[in-house]
Parts: sequence; C-alpha cells; structure tokens
Amino acid sequence: MRPMLMNTHEARLAALREELKRQGLDGFVVPISDEHMSEYVGGYAQRLHWLTGFNGSAGTAAVLADEAAIFVDGRYTLQVRDQVDGRFYAYENVPETSPAEWLGEHVPEGARIGFDPWLHGKAWAERAGKALAGRGATLVPVASNPIDAIWADRPQPSLAPAEVHDLAYAGVSSEEKRSTVAQWLGEKGLDAAVIAALDSIAWLLNIRGTDVERTPVTLSFVLAHADGTADLFIAPEKVTPELRAHLGNAVRIADDSAFVPALQALAGKRVAVDPDSAVQAVFGVLGEAGAEVVGERDPCVLPKATKNPVEQAGHRAAQARDGAALTRFLHWLSVEGPKGGVTEIAAADRLHQFRREAGDLRDLSFDTISGSGPNGAIVHYRVSEETNRTLPPGSVYLVDSGGQYPDGTTDVTRTVWIGPGAPPGEVRDRFTRVLKGHIALARATFPRGTAGHQLDALARSHLWQAGLDYAHGTGHGVGSFLSVHEGPQRIGKAAGGQGGTGQELLPGMILSNEPGYYKTGDYGIRIENLQLVEPREIAGAEGEYLGFETLTFAPIGRALVDPALLDGDERAWWNAYHARVMEVVGPQLAGGARAWLAAECAPL
Amino acid sequence: MRPMLMNTHEARLAALREELKRQGLDGFVVPISDEHMSEYVGGYAQRLHWLTGFNGSAGTAAVLADEAAIFVDGRYTLQVRDQVDGRFYAYENVPETSPAEWLGEHVPEGARIGFDPWLHGKAWAERAGKALAGRGATLVPVASNPIDAIWADRPQPSLAPAEVHDLAYAGVSSEEKRSTVAQWLGEKGLDAAVIAALDSIAWLLNIRGTDVERTPVTLSFVLAHADGTADLFIAPEKVTPELRAHLGNAVRIADDSAFVPALQALAGKRVAVDPDSAVQAVFGVLGEAGAEVVGERDPCVLPKATKNPVEQAGHRAAQARDGAALTRFLHWLSVEGPKGGVTEIAAADRLHQFRREAGDLRDLSFDTISGSGPNGAIVHYRVSEETNRTLPPGSVYLVDSGGQYPDGTTDVTRTVWIGPGAPPGEVRDRFTRVLKGHIALARATFPRGTAGHQLDALARSHLWQAGLDYAHGTGHGVGSFLSVHEGPQRIGKAAGGQGGTGQELLPGMILSNEPGYYKTGDYGIRIENLQLVEPREIAGAEGEYLGFETLTFAPIGRALVDPALLDGDERAWWNAYHARVMEVVGPQLAGGARAWLAAECAPL
Repeated sequence: MRPMLMNTHEARLAALREELKRQGLDGFVVPISDEHMSEYVGGYAQRLHWLTGFNGSAGTAAVLADEAAIFVDGRYTLQVRDQVDGRFYAYENVPETSPAEWLGEHVPEGARIGFDPWLHGKAWAERAGKALAGRGATLVPVASNPIDAIWADRPQPSLAPAEVHDLAYAGVSSEEKRSTVAQWLGEKGLDAAVIAALDSIAWLLNIRGTDVERTPVTLSFVLAHADGTADLFIAPEKVTPELRAHLGNAVRIADDSAFVPALQALAGKRVAVDPDSAVQAVFGVLGEAGAEVVGERDPCVLPKATKNPVEQAGHRAAQARDGAALTRFLHWLSVEGPKGGVTEIAAADRLHQFRREAGDLRDLSFDTISGSGPNGAIVHYRVSEETNRTLPPGSVYLVDSGGQYPDGTTDVTRTVWIGPGAPPGEVRDRFTRVLKGHIALARATFPRGTAGHQLDALARSHLWQAGLDYAHGTGHGVGSFLSVHEGPQRIGKAAGGQGGTGQELLPGMILSNEPGYYKTGDYGIRIENLQLVEPREIAGAEGEYLGFETLTFAPIGRALVDPALLDGDERAWWNAYHARVMEVVGPQLAGGARAWLAAECAPL
Repeated sequence: MRPMLMNTHEARLAALREELKRQGLDGFVVPISDEHMSEYVGGYAQRLHWLTGFNGSAGTAAVLADEAAIFVDGRYTLQVRDQVDGRFYAYENVPETSPAEWLGEHVPEGARIGFDPWLHGKAWAERAGKALAGRGATLVPVASNPIDAIWADRPQPSLAPAEVHDLAYAGVSSEEKRSTVAQWLGEKGLDAAVIAALDSIAWLLNIRGTDVERTPVTLSFVLAHADGTADLFIAPEKVTPELRAHLGNAVRIADDSAFVPALQALAGKRVAVDPDSAVQAVFGVLGEAGAEVVGERDPCVLPKATKNPVEQAGHRAAQARDGAALTRFLHWLSVEGPKGGVTEIAAADRLHQFRREAGDLRDLSFDTISGSGPNGAIVHYRVSEETNRTLPPGSVYLVDSGGQYPDGTTDVTRTVWIGPGAPPGEVRDRFTRVLKGHIALARATFPRGTAGHQLDALARSHLWQAGLDYAHGTGHGVGSFLSVHEGPQRIGKAAGGQGGTGQELLPGMILSNEPGYYKTGDYGIRIENLQLVEPREIAGAEGEYLGFETLTFAPIGRALVDPALLDGDERAWWNAYHARVMEVVGPQLAGGARAWLAAECAPL
C-alpha cells in the first residue's frame, strides 16, 4: 500500500475536487467573504483559510480539476508563500491578475465553474461571467457551498445575543432613523430597501452585537419599508426580550431563514439594493421573483457617517479615556523600553490592559499593530510568536491601536523612540516631515464641497520634497461603536482607485489623519489622530467653510521632532495640541505618569 | 403699409425660420464652433454672433418655430442680457439647463430639429438625440448650414498661406513625428488616424498659419497613416512652394473638398478618431462608408504637450524677451500710473508696443485682460470703449497677457498697485495669500504619477484659511507657438468636471500657475507664471520625482506683499526668484527701467 503522504491542505483540495465532481462542476472560486461583504468575516466563513492555510485578510482561490491558484495583493505576496503549498496552488498577484482573468485563460472550453452567490458581489459575478463566456464556459451559482459539504468541523455562525445600543449613545432613535430612510424611499418612488451591511443594520436599529471580532455588529438582514417599518431577519437564538422591547412593533422580527422568501414576496415592488454591500444572491432572488431592483447607495451610509451631536460628544468622551490609557502605556514604555526586555507582544498586551483599566472597553477596534524596527516598516504588520521582536534600546517602535467603547470607536498611532540616547538625524528628519504633513491636514480649512482627494497632498508634500512618500491612504472614516474603517469618505490619492476619495466631506464625519514613512528593513513612522469635520466660522468668509476638530489626545513624541524644521504655525499647532492633551489627559493621571506627560507637553 | 419695425437680429431670426421651413425643419441649434471644435473660431464661423448679437466666446442658441433660447455660462449672464434681445430669446444658464434638455422639454411632438454635424461633437449629438427621442422628435443632420443660406455677406474662411515651422523651433522633424504616430497606429492595429485639431496638425506637420486670431494654425484636416505618410486636406490657395518642399513626398496635399471622399475611401479600415476634436460628421461619414471607427485620444496630444529640449530652450528664450517687455511696461506704469491719466486700453496698447519692440512677436497669445479696480475682479474681462476705466491713483490693476513668438507662447499675469501711497492692509493680506499659494505650487515636488487635481489645493489652502477661494482653475497647459490653452494636463478641482485634472503630469509639460482672488465690485488679484515639469534629482529619493522650473521672469510686485505673512521658505523663494529675474531681464534693460527693476528685485 502506498504510504499516506497527503498533508491536510492537499487532502482538503482533493476532497473539494471530489465534491465538485459530484455537483457536476469543473471548478470553484473560494473568496474570503460573508453574506454581507464584510471587511472582517467570522470563523464560519473562513473557507479560504481552511482550504489553503492562508490567513491574510484578503485573497481568493480558484480551483479547477487539475490546477489551482491563489490570488493575493502586494501585502501578502511573502505570507502566501509561507502558508500555502506551491505544489498545489500557483501564486498570483492582484490587481495584475484577477481570478476572473485567470479563469478566462485556464478553464477548459465549455466548463461549468461554480461560485457561491452569497459570497460575491454582482459586479464580480458579471465580470467573471464575461471572462468565462470568452472560453464558452459558464459561471454557475451553487445552491450550497461545496466546501461546507466537506468541512466537517466548520464552526457555526455566532449565535450571541443581539444587544440594545442605548439612545444615550446613539443620539437618534431607530424610529427617527427609519423615518428618514422611509422619506428617502418615498422621494425615489421606491417601496423598500435591502440593508445588507451589518454596520448599517446596527446603525438603523440601534443594536450591536459580538458576532464579528473587533466590530460590534450582529449577523442579520433588514428590509426597510417606505412606511417606516422594517423586517429584521435574525437567528432566533439571538433575540432577547430586551431586544424585542427595544425594537417595538414597527420592526417585525423573523427567523433568518425567512429572508429569501421575504425577498421573493417583493415581486412587483421597486427595491433599492446597494451593489457595494448586497451579494449577488440578493439581486438574483429579487430578479427572479420579478421585483424591480434599483441600484442605490445604502441609505444608511451617509447619515451613519455624519455623526449627530450625541455621537460626537460620545467620541470626545471615549477618546479622552482612550488617550489616558495610551498615555499611561507611553509612560510605562518610556520607563521599561530602555531596559531592553519589552517584546512587541508584551507591549500590545500591556496597552490592552491599560485600555481595560480605562473602563467601558468592549473590544479592541482592530488587532494592535505593534512593530519594532523593521517590523514597523510593514504597513499591515500583525505580530505573531514567530515574528515577535524585543524592542532594542535605541530603536523606533510603532504602535497603531484602538478600542471599541459604547460611546465611540478609537484608532490612534504613535511612533516611539526607545531610549536611551537620541534618535539619529535621519529618523528625526523623517518623523518631522510626517508630522508637518499631519499638522497641515489637521489645520486645513476648506470650502464646503471639497472631497478627500483634494486634501491628500497637504499631508504628503513635505515628504515629497525629500523624494519620499507612503504607499497607503491618508485618512479613513471611523464608526461610532462600529467599524473602525467606515465609508463613504476617505482622504487619499484618487489615482489608486480608492473608493470614497471623491466623497464630499460633510460636518460630523470623522476621519483618521495618518501620514507615515516606512524604510523597509529598518523602521516605520506613522502619526495618527482622529478628527471630526466641523463648520468653521471665519470673519469675512465668502461661502461656507469647514475644518477639523482633533479628537485624539496623547503626546506625539517630542524626542523624535526636529524643531528646526517646524515653521511658526506648525510649532504653534504642536504647542496648542499638547496643552490640550495636558488638559484632557492630565487630570486622569497621577504621580510619575503625570509628571512625564507634563514634560512631554511642555512648549517646544 | 405696416412700418418696418424689425431690428437686424429680429429680421435674421425671421429669415432663419423661413429657411428652416424651406428645409422641412422645425428647429435648429446654433453653437459657436468650427469644423475642428476649436476654442477660438474664425469670423466665417461666428454664426451665433451674426444671428443674435452675442459676442462671448461660448454659447448656443436653439431656435424653434415660435420660441428661441440662448444658453450661456456664468461668465456671460450679464453680457447676454446686454447684447441679445429678450423679446426673441429666452435666457438660459448652462450647466443648469443644457440646450439638449431645453429642446427635450420645448419641441413639439414628432418635430425634426436640425443641427450642423460639422459643428458638434458626437457626444453632444447623442445626448441631444436622446433628449429629443423622449418627445418623439428627431435630431436631423443638415447637408448645408441654413444660416449660411441667409447670411449674405458671410466672410470666407481665411485663405492665408500656410507657413513652415522651422526645425530650429520645432526640434523634431515631421517625418519623425509621423513615424511616432505610425508606430502608435501599428501597436493598436489601426490603419489611420483622423487628425482634426488644428494645433495637432500644426504640430505633426511642423506648419503654422494666421487663419485664427491669437492661435497660429492653418485651416486643414489630416489623415495620418500607419506607413508614416499623411494626407493634408487644405484650400489650394494656402499651399506655397515652400510648404510643398517642406512637406516632401510622404505628405500628399489635396484640396480640402477631397477630405470627405478620402474618409469614404477608408471603408473596411480601422480608423482612430478623437471624439474631443473630431465633429460628428467625421464619425457619420466614416460609419456610413463602412470604416471601423475606434475612439482614441488624438495621438499628437501627448507628444505635443511634452515639449522636447529644443522647444524647452525656445520657451526660455521667448520668455526672457517677453519678461523684459513686461518689465519695461511695469516700469512705465510705475511712472505714469500715479499721474492718473492711464486708461485700461492705453495700458494694454502700451504693453503690446513693448512686446513688439522685444522682437519676433507674431501675435498676442490672447486678448489682453487689462482690468482696473472692479474690472479686475471680472475673471474674463475684455476691455472695450464702453468699459474702459482710467486707472485711479491708489488702486489695484490686473494685467493678464501673452505673446506668440516662433520659439514659444507666453502667458503671464501681474497685479499692480497704482501709487502713490501704500495698498490697504486687506489688499496686501489677499495678495500675500495668493502669493503663498503660487509659491507652494512653484516649489512643489511630487512623485511621478501625480495628476493636476492632487496639487490644486496647495495653491488654495492659504486663501481657504481665510474663508476665501477663486472660481477658476489653477493651471492650464500652454503650446509652443500654438494654443495658449493646450491640453491634456490641467491643475484644478476635479469636482468641477474640469477635463485634464486627472492627467498625469509628465516631464516637458508646461503649465500656468495662476491662483487669484477677486472681490466683486472692488478689485482683482492674480499672479501667473508658466512653469515646466522637470525631473528632480533628490539625494536618497525613493522613486522618480518631478518638480517645476519657472519659465516666466518679471517682478511680482513687492508693494503688495506683506512680508510678515511669509515663512522662511517662502521668503527664500521670493528672493531667489527675483535674483533670477534680475539675471534674466536686467541685462536687457537700461537706465531708469534697470534701476527700478533692481529695487523691485532687492531681497525682501
């Protein structure tokens, strides 16, 4: 008998091919996605990881009868080679090669390639269908996912109870929000809207949950109707008496299995569906049932992004607690770092502990990026036991972290010089250029109507002067006890095709301001605060002007600044910011931490 | 007998309606346009002016059997009311109401509305056709323009001879340019390209002309072929022996009437046509003949925009002469202005005279904008006998002007304080903010791949800080002894739908840098230099970086600057710029002018 040499992932691939044969398919596409096109997906939907071993946040595999490929972007080109066996999967880079293009070139004439319509958007299905048609092949929606048939110990989707998001945090009742959506539907002559994005559902119904790590949402679907009522489709295990009482009679609660029949019952109605958050299956079911599907942006997206005064106040309160926790951590690091024993994991854990002690922490808002030296230069670094470095004295350390609090979501990056001694001139020069960009964006005043791509260069121009840049966006939206990456607004180069950079910035929107600089193999620098778009009263202004209120308060790191490179306005900003840090954070500290903060916040 | 009360334009409108009836049409659209979709059109094509009396540079009339409307943009809302009789034409604003939309709402059911397919683009015809179809009406291309049938003394198109543009100015031979175009055609699998834009023809064949005021082009069409040959369609009167000798055998010269038959002879070929410069008729003729029309950007556009080293050197030489002429004018104005007798027209004439004396001037590059006080606040001001103001002592004067020289095209704006006395604080504040924006753009360094919309905010941010802005773009391309507005590059807010702001800036491109501020009814400020995109060598640069070489040299106006508002870098830029003005312009001046310049150029 031939010895059993198959490794786990080889066996899983073979089993998938068997299952595809059984279902009459010549291939299958495996994305990292869920039924809501979420940025982060639960364990039950981590089919790509289970199949291939790849655990990055974005990627796709395409499996044919005798070949297979895995597609990842530039962040994961090294990682995919470590985690996925090249004997079974060809490595492909997106956007250079898309799975659709690859399939178009590799499928046999006349093949039937399966995809799960609950995991892909409409645009993807159209593109892939077209690429396959070029080979006389067909893209076939499967009725059930073939991976689920062979993944014996697949976790269940979370059945954790949905939670009420108190009006004291939400600021506006669900009834009022639903009435806004109903008015929008009426104006557009629509009967209903499918709300598929989990954070839109959370916002609309003022509910939260613990189904997805780092993002406090609850797995469900909603149909919002033009009469202001809504249907919530949710696993019955998740429904508590408190939830029923909170939602009231105008929100009908149904089992999640009732969602498809409810879509079918919309036959003859005009239904708004957002192609950015609703999967192909929603379009398919509605279309087959004879509903008129109208592609519209989810009507919750813009009101969710423009925080109401209660949410704004909540953010300020959450940021003040969070800033104190981060400041305690920075003080602790100023003492422990130079001793030489702190590791990246220990630092992240200590910071987490300070956040817990700050009170009201429900979760982190994302996995802490804790990068020492060269690890700090990896933009999407995620520390693991294998990569864990001890922070050497005389080095640069980057920490990007945030918390989920019921009154707000935080996201802040600080770059720290681990003493003793002073940072090299190059590091101070780079840090100060990043700082000048951060200040230029923080100080920006702009006319109403301005979009994020117009402001992006303000944050980069001082780096550009030295022939330097950073390969990521400058600012993203942030939710209120919701997703730490929230659309539709974004500050970035439009050229990179970054969605949202054309969105007008509106009062109440929150954006990160996070320029950086990364020297591969050496160190990474990033300075990130959150800031709120606010109306600006200017004497003699011609038209309506907006600016930013900084929300994040923690010292930025004076050891790394070269004050000679700052002009008067920049120095004034630094001093005013740190005076405010002292005001907001100082009273929350005592003893050594407070004295350390006072020194950090003294005028430059 | 009823007395003859009809005024000229009433009579012309009545005659047009008669002619439309004769041609079986229920209406007609009259744009300001020519067969090349030129920015400025010759007198023979000024049909809108003849019909309505409106003499702005952009506008359209729509004439139906019993109503008519004239459509202009915000620049001309006042002027159109002065020039066009409201009893016969409704005033409509674009973009709020487009002629196509208006027609869609006003045409009778089933109407036939004529348009001249040699004066409209394809996109316009499609949009208008669709708007009319909504009323069951049809858009009908006319075989001959009905206005030409009733315009008895319509001028002929110019028959001035085409001129050779010497290789010493062009830098690259027509043969080499045609071979570049041929290679492009080969790569795209195309047989030929229609070159309809007059400046592209001038560039491709190294010819110039005097058919259009302010832009030295010659009326013609070109077919460029994949074998590197070309057909030039041109009135025989314009062809001189020198032109024949210059063009050689590979450029076949044909009568302009042979253009349509030549298009028809392309049946079965793949032909590139640029929808931004070729009119609907070209698409129509090719389509009917059975050619395969491929929409592509005119292949001359990008090489024309990226000036070769000879053209760059030519620009420097032309700018040096032009700067001396402008400086002489500014000196003259510093003496004559405070006496109080100088008018806007006299100033423009005097400046023109200085340019003539500088040598080699072939034409102005546009009508000089010479605006005193409130007239300076009108962005597209064009002085006339009616609006001519005497520059009062103690006032702001704006002069935007340029020349056409065989080695380069210039475009420069200066704002001048007419003494005696010092400018008010507000004017100095505004001027200095505009200057800070100008300097920020002049000093910008940016990575290759950057587009104009990314840099626009650098020029505005100091105005925005005070709640101020300007309602025009920041920079446009400029030709080499060609159009003073040359695409495809542009620096501006993309949001205004300004074409070209998404174009990557490439080494060799020339752009204006012209932020401004306009206080309606009071004064206008603008500072404009031309600058060349150049590679930037930066020690330690990560990637390819670009910056600007300033081409324009003339003192900017120290009386208007508030040095206290400038930071160290800005002051250094001012001083370095004026030191260079002294170097470039100083040796061309003598006596009082030179002493005045030295004082203007002394360090701030």
